[in-house]
Amino acid sequence: MRISNLVLPSLKEIPAEAVIASHQLMLRAGLIRKMTSGIYSYLPLGLKALRKVERIIREEMDRAGAQEFMLPLLLPREIWEETGRWAVMGDLMMKVHDRAGKDSVLAPTAEEGFTSILRDELKSWRQLPCTVYQIGKKFRDEIRPRFGVMRGREFIMKDAYSFDRDQKDLDASYEAMRTAYYRIFKRLGLEVTGVAADSGAMGGSGSEEFMVPSTVGENEIVVCRACNRAANVETARCRQDLPAQSGAGSLSLEKVSTPAVRTIEELCTFFSCDAAQFLKSLVYTCEKDGKKAFALAVIRGDLDVNEVKLANALGVPEVALAGEEEVRTVTGAPVGFAGPVGLSGVPVVADLTLKAVVDGITGANERDCHYKGVNHGRDWTATLWADLRTVREGDPCEHCGQPLAVFRGIEVGHIFKLGDKYTKSMGVTYLDENGQNKTPIMGCYGIGVDRSLASVIEQHHDQDGIIWPASVAPYDVVIVPINWAHEETQAAALKLTAEMEGLGLEVLLDDREARAGFKFKDADLFGFPLRITIGEKTLATGEVEWKRRADGEGGRVALAAAAEAVAAMHRELLAACQV
Amino acid sequence: MRISNLVLPSLKEIPAEAVIASHQLMLRAGLIRKMTSGIYSYLPLGLKALRKVERIIREEMDRAGAQEFMLPLLLPREIWEETGRWAVMGDLMMKVHDRAGKDSVLAPTAEEGFTSILRDELKSWRQLPCTVYQIGKKFRDEIRPRFGVMRGREFIMKDAYSFDRDQKDLDASYEAMRTAYYRIFKRLGLEVTGVAADSGAMGGSGSEEFMVPSTVGENEIVVCRACNRAANVETARCRQDLPAQSGAGSLSLEKVSTPAVRTIEELCTFFSCDAAQFLKSLVYTCEKDGKKAFALAVIRGDLDVNEVKLANALGVPEVALAGEEEVRTVTGAPVGFAGPVGLSGVPVVADLTLKAVVDGITGANERDCHYKGVNHGRDWTATLWADLRTVREGDPCEHCGQPLAVFRGIEVGHIFKLGDKYTKSMGVTYLDENGQNKTPIMGCYGIGVDRSLASVIEQHHDQDGIIWPASVAPYDVVIVPINWAHEETQAAALKLTAEMEGLGLEVLLDDREARAGFKFKDADLFGFPLRITIGEKTLATGEVEWKRRADGEGGRVALAAAAEAVAAMHRELLAACQV
Repeated sequence: MRISNLVLPSLKEIPAEAVIASHQLMLRAGLIRKMTSGIYSYLPLGLKALRKVERIIREEMDRAGAQEFMLPLLLPREIWEETGRWAVMGDLMMKVHDRAGKDSVLAPTAEEGFTSILRDELKSWRQLPCTVYQIGKKFRDEIRPRFGVMRGREFIMKDAYSFDRDQKDLDASYEAMRTAYYRIFKRLGLEVTGVAADSGAMGGSGSEEFMVPSTVGENEIVVCRACNRAANVETARCRQDLPAQSGAGSLSLEKVSTPAVRTIEELCTFFSCDAAQFLKSLVYTCEKDGKKAFALAVIRGDLDVNEVKLANALGVPEVALAGEEEVRTVTGAPVGFAGPVGLSGVPVVADLTLKAVVDGITGANERDCHYKGVNHGRDWTATLWADLRTVREGDPCEHCGQPLAVFRGIEVGHIFKLGDKYTKSMGVTYLDENGQNKTPIMGCYGIGVDRSLASVIEQHHDQDGIIWPASVAPYDVVIVPINWAHEETQAAALKLTAEMEGLGLEVLLDDREARAGFKFKDADLFGFPLRITIGEKTLATGEVEWKRRADGEGGRVALAAAAEAVAAMHRELLAACQV
Repeated sequence: MRISNLVLPSLKEIPAEAVIASHQLMLRAGLIRKMTSGIYSYLPLGLKALRKVERIIREEMDRAGAQEFMLPLLLPREIWEETGRWAVMGDLMMKVHDRAGKDSVLAPTAEEGFTSILRDELKSWRQLPCTVYQIGKKFRDEIRPRFGVMRGREFIMKDAYSFDRDQKDLDASYEAMRTAYYRIFKRLGLEVTGVAADSGAMGGSGSEEFMVPSTVGENEIVVCRACNRAANVETARCRQDLPAQSGAGSLSLEKVSTPAVRTIEELCTFFSCDAAQFLKSLVYTCEKDGKKAFALAVIRGDLDVNEVKLANALGVPEVALAGEEEVRTVTGAPVGFAGPVGLSGVPVVADLTLKAVVDGITGANERDCHYKGVNHGRDWTATLWADLRTVREGDPCEHCGQPLAVFRGIEVGHIFKLGDKYTKSMGVTYLDENGQNKTPIMGCYGIGVDRSLASVIEQHHDQDGIIWPASVAPYDVVIVPINWAHEETQAAALKLTAEMEGLGLEVLLDDREARAGFKFKDADLFGFPLRITIGEKTLATGEVEWKRRADGEGGRVALAAAAEAVAAMHRELLAACQV
């Protein structure tokens, strides 16, 4: 392909709208263009890379025995009402009201869609296990679309669904997908960390998120390098290592006047002590049995409450910090003076670490007052003890005690065991060996396709541009003739292009009449794995120059041997992405 | 692939919802399933065929130098307002109102989308000519979706757009697409007729429709086999071969009482004459200069008015038959008694054939009255003479005089020269060699992808099922072991599958424990080009049976040579679809 035939608009400046590297580079290298908020067009170079990502995913899905479908993007309201998600998903779903007066949903996911098909087609246990998938557009009306295709409103997803007879079979289907996922990400050149995720809200048990470590990730992950375990910070636990403690300390409970002293920092200064001495107390609100409820979460002053853990402890879907007025209603004091001592009317959920705090300090539920000499059992009791702490870098691993690492990650894939949530509500059954009607159980398995592509760029770039893994590169080689107008150069370039294409390489020939420096900059920006430079001087000696984008290595090679040499280098690069 | 691993639900009965063969067979062979009105899911077998159609289209687009993009399906309202199509396309477009309060269109086509991208990226004449395309979903809220994927509300289209500097370049871009289209349809095994279409409403000049002759087609096409010309019936003309006629006939004008005699048939009986003697007069309504207007169309009683020709003659976008009340207002008489004699206040558009009608008969614009002895010039005059007739089977070709054929066709592709309609309204410019701002001109080129797939089935099926052309068949070969439980049969089947797959064939192995007759019926229904049957008896002699689906030819071949033999037969079948 000649570059002059390609709509390939590279940008020299970093577009103002883009704050992360992949977004900037996808715009600068002409892979995508914004159509409107959270909605992008793929230009030829971007589409070529995207198709390679899709192909790798498809090959691994097929290899794992999954069958490809293509469901419509417009899914009728009725099936979403059957599962209750018409109401639950609300404004996240984009909807179409057609001229016949019917409502449809622009697929945000396809559990209902596939389940409705299987409901009609599944008759016998002989058809199970069965895993189905598709690769296609999905739509979610994100409140804050951002980071280019990383979080768009129209995006591409691979979504798969398994249907099984029992938990054992589901475990096997799940494991097959899990294996396929690791193969896919390896082939994409993506380092991923599999993370046990909180799947409470998804209606099933057992799930794993596939995270690409990246400072721009929207998720926080806790990893133990020693025992190779990872968890989302929302559910991560650490070893508590707390001394058993009987309750009473050496001090008696004493109310202290603390005018305008509210934050932990202010308290540390005021009391000249460590944050770990405080019983940080926070009023939360949640919905329980359809009514608004409150709870006091108490934790050591140097730790933070993990709201997912708190919600799980309370047995509610989610909690939120109470507002100022609510805090006043619950505690009788303004924000900053809450504490478990003498508080009644709301449950007190205490973090396990507080069992080891003696002679602590906490709010007195009274403006400008704190208690010191606070000891549990004697001065206050917990309605509920629970692990509430947010795990932090350096906390000891629950399993091996080694320090945990915390990093940010981009979620590129997610697999779940769903159970019978969808098959039951939609009435899917099959006849088992004994002629009995049974309900199959499901798993669901997603990969963000364009998010994976963007993640590849996040992990593979430098200040000059993209550094494509060979498996995903839109072209394998770029040929840069220094002076396109020079006859011998042009002839050599065309000959070499044809030779390399004959060897199965995808070649982009930069046939623009532009300065060599300009073309080199573009080549670095576009990030093809290999570059061949054809200059008059080297050509006079029968040679051309090669350069590897990834490590900047380069050298000269005889023109006559160049195609074979490049093909060999390319095979080596490809091998790095093979499973 | 083993059939037991495939969600491949064949149906024995013809589904009640399907009236045409392709729709019936796509449902019966498990290629598609209906999700809701005009919206279908592709099942694995259907998707495999669809992908082959897409691939052929993609290869030919790339070969013609077009560049593949992927535009979003949600396109912002603003760009549709720029071209005025937000209003014009109205309810045909499905719309989404998002949580930010913005309106988007679910792409029914992408002139605006591509033009908006080129507006930003096109700078210089050096970037032209440029043809861009995509293959993806389109949405149209059809009032009457029907025939399965033939006319759906969510469907797949290949749409391409060329941008050129001038008419000469556009002609070349158009011609390249035209050539690609003929190659594509040939490769798909589709016989198509290219038809000069009426493109008045598309804002450009020059267009061609690609029609698949089929009794279930929604378009009527007129073809001259002698001079190899074709036209849509909407614009088709024929030779008039009319004797010059001076006006007056032998009879004088006479009013005749014709109580309740209205139709041409009734008049023929009443007057004992041929339908060609009548001046059939029809009141039409149209919009002219923003106001409702009327016109009387007059044509020979044995001919039919072509409304597109009438609209063109009147210089309006479209016409419609007037209602009963309107006819009464215009003519003063009920429907059935209109005529040009003495009519005032509305233009009279007369078909050219009437110049040769002497002593004709027509309505008297009075209840239960007709005139006989009607002669133009003497008794009535035309405001406008025009070719209004709808061409019929057997009419003489305008060019060579040979009888024309009329057949129905399915429109699978359409190419247009658009001119500057979109580039001008959206303000696209480029700098020419002299540094002047110029507006490029466009062509647009569509192929209905799933409509093409359905058309392949319309053209290639028999009473037993589909007969896939080798280029589109989801699998190349089906292996039917008569008795899967028989050990040697199973071993032979697995070995042969592996051998054939090793030769690059796509093989479906019918490993179901079912009656041979059942499997044969399915094989015929699915329509794979070649079938291998493995039975105990033939296997005992070291042989298997082969059968070609298209012509039913078959025979025996040594098991050891079967893979090579099938591969050779398959190559032959593929060659029939090559360009």
